[in-house]
Amino acid sequence: MDRISRRGLLFAGAGLALAGATPTASQIIERIKQNVGVPWRTETVDRFVAGDPETPVKGIATTMMATLDVIERASAAGKNLVITHEPTFWLHQDTIAGLEQDSTYQFKIDFIRRNNMAVFHFHDHWHAHKPDGIATGMARELGWEKNADPEDPKMFIFPAVRLSSFAKGIQSRLKIRTMRVVGDPNLTIKRAVASWGYASRDPGIQLLARPDVDAVIVGEAREWEVVEYAQDAIAAGHKKALLVLGHVVSEQAGMKYCADWLKTFVTDVPVEFVAAAEPFWTPA
Amino acid sequence: MDRISRRGLLFAGAGLALAGATPTASQIIERIKQNVGVPWRTETVDRFVAGDPETPVKGIATTMMATLDVIERASAAGKNLVITHEPTFWLHQDTIAGLEQDSTYQFKIDFIRRNNMAVFHFHDHWHAHKPDGIATGMARELGWEKNADPEDPKMFIFPAVRLSSFAKGIQSRLKIRTMRVVGDPNLTIKRAVASWGYASRDPGIQLLARPDVDAVIVGEAREWEVVEYAQDAIAAGHKKALLVLGHVVSEQAGMKYCADWLKTFVTDVPVEFVAAAEPFWTPA
Repeated sequence: MDRISRRGLLFAGAGLALAGATPTASQIIERIKQNVGVPWRTETVDRFVAGDPETPVKGIATTMMATLDVIERASAAGKNLVITHEPTFWLHQDTIAGLEQDSTYQFKIDFIRRNNMAVFHFHDHWHAHKPDGIATGMARELGWEKNADPEDPKMFIFPAVRLSSFAKGIQSRLKIRTMRVVGDPNLTIKRAVASWGYASRDPGIQLLARPDVDAVIVGEAREWEVVEYAQDAIAAGHKKALLVLGHVVSEQAGMKYCADWLKTFVTDVPVEFVAAAEPFWTPA
Repeated sequence: MDRISRRGLLFAGAGLALAGATPTASQIIERIKQNVGVPWRTETVDRFVAGDPETPVKGIATTMMATLDVIERASAAGKNLVITHEPTFWLHQDTIAGLEQDSTYQFKIDFIRRNNMAVFHFHDHWHAHKPDGIATGMARELGWEKNADPEDPKMFIFPAVRLSSFAKGIQSRLKIRTMRVVGDPNLTIKRAVASWGYASRDPGIQLLARPDVDAVIVGEAREWEVVEYAQDAIAAGHKKALLVLGHVVSEQAGMKYCADWLKTFVTDVPVEFVAAAEPFWTPA
C-alpha cells in the first residue's frame, strides 16, 4: 500500500473526528469494521438493534448484555452508544415479532429512543477477531495468559490442582454467585479447555471426549445434552469435569477487553465498560 | 361399549401376561399406548432408543433421565426396561450420528445390550396425557394440589409469601442443591405458573408478562432469552420473579408419578421409580 492510499484509509477511519465534529454511531461502527481484522459477514447478528444509527455519540459503553439495567446505567454515565455482545431483545437474532405490544419491550425501546441512544449487537465479529476478543479478555481476567497453550488459546495448562480448588479459584476471580460443577471434587485438573458462552451439543461433547482434556469450562449448556454427557463420561470411567459458570460471567471480561481495544482507535469520545449483573441468586 | 368389546380390550391390554408368559418391552409399550388416553403421534421422540424391544421384561424402571448411572442402578435392581422422560444419548431426538465411535456412547450402549435391557423415550405422550403426567407428579411432590387453579393445572395460588421463603420452600421440598432465582427476595408471591422442564423464549416471555402472574417456575431457560426478559421486566417496574430449578429436579417427580400410573395397568412385572441425580454441585 502506498502512502497516499494509507492516508486515505486513516482519514476514513477517523471519520468526522478530524474535522472536530461528533461522530455518529454508524461512523463508530465503521471504524470497528475497519479495525476488527476480518471481512464483515453478510450473514451475521451484528447490527444496530435499537435506536438511531445517526445519533451523535457522546460516549460508548461496552457490555456483555444490554439489559435495561445496563442501558440505564450507560445513559446515566453519559454513554449513548451501547455495544453489546449478547442480544437486547431476548433472542439471538433480536427479532421482536409478536412482542411489539409487550410493555417491557415498549419500556426498553422508549428509554433508548428518548435518550438518543443506539444499541449495536457485536457478537460474531468479536469472536472472529484474531485472537477471539472474548477469549482474550477472559484469559486476562482469570490471570491465565501464562497458562494458555500457544497452539490453542482456549486450552489452559495448570500444575495439578484438585477440581474443588480449581472451581473455587474461578468462582472467586470472576465473583460468581451461582456457578455449578459436574465431577468428583477430588479429580486432578491439569488441562482445561474453555468454551466461553453457550456450549451446544457439538462441539461440547467432542471437547469433553478429548483425551488431553480434564475439564471443560462453559457459560451455559443444556442439561440433556453436554451436562448429561459429562455425567455419563464420568460414569463410564473417564476422569472428567464440567464447570458451568453462567453465561454472562463466562464472557463478561471479553467485553471489558473490548473497551480497551476500542480505545486504541476511538480517541474522540469516551469509552467505558459497563458490567451486566449476574442475574441469579441462590436461596440461602 | 358393550361387555364383549370391553373384555376384548382388557385382554389385549394385559397382553401375554394372562397366559403367564413374561411380557416383552414392546408389549409393555403397547399397553402404555392403550392407556395414555391420547392418539399416538406420528411425529414424536417417543420410541425405543436403545436395546431390544423384544427383550422379556423382568422389571420396569421409570426415570427422569436415563443417565448411565440410572441405567446401571436399574439393572442392579432387576429392572431391564427403562422408561425415561429425557434423552439417553444427549440430544432430544436421541440421534447418535457422529458419535458411533465415542467411547462413552459405546460403554453405555454395550451395558444396555449386555444386560438385555431396552430403553424407551417417553416424553411427548406423558405431557399429552390429560392431565399432563409431569405436572401432576410435580404438584403432588410439592404438596401443591390444593393450590392448583382448577382452570389451569400449572397455575398455583398461595397466601401472600415472600419470594425468599417461597424459593426456600421449593428448594427444601425438592432437595435442590443448585437452584437459581431472579427477582427481589422481598417480592410478594400470590400466583405462580410452572413451565416444568425447558422454557423456550415463547411462551416463557408470555408467561412472565401475564398480569396475573407473580412468578414463573422453570427447569432451565437460556440466559439471553427468558432470563434476560425477567431481568428487564423487573427493571421496567413489573413485580416479577423467575425461579430456575434445574431441568432434572423440575420434572423428576413426574416420572415418580409415572411409576404409580404404570402400576394401575402393569401388574405382572415390578415397576420402580429410579431417581436421576441432580448433576451439579456448587463450590463451597
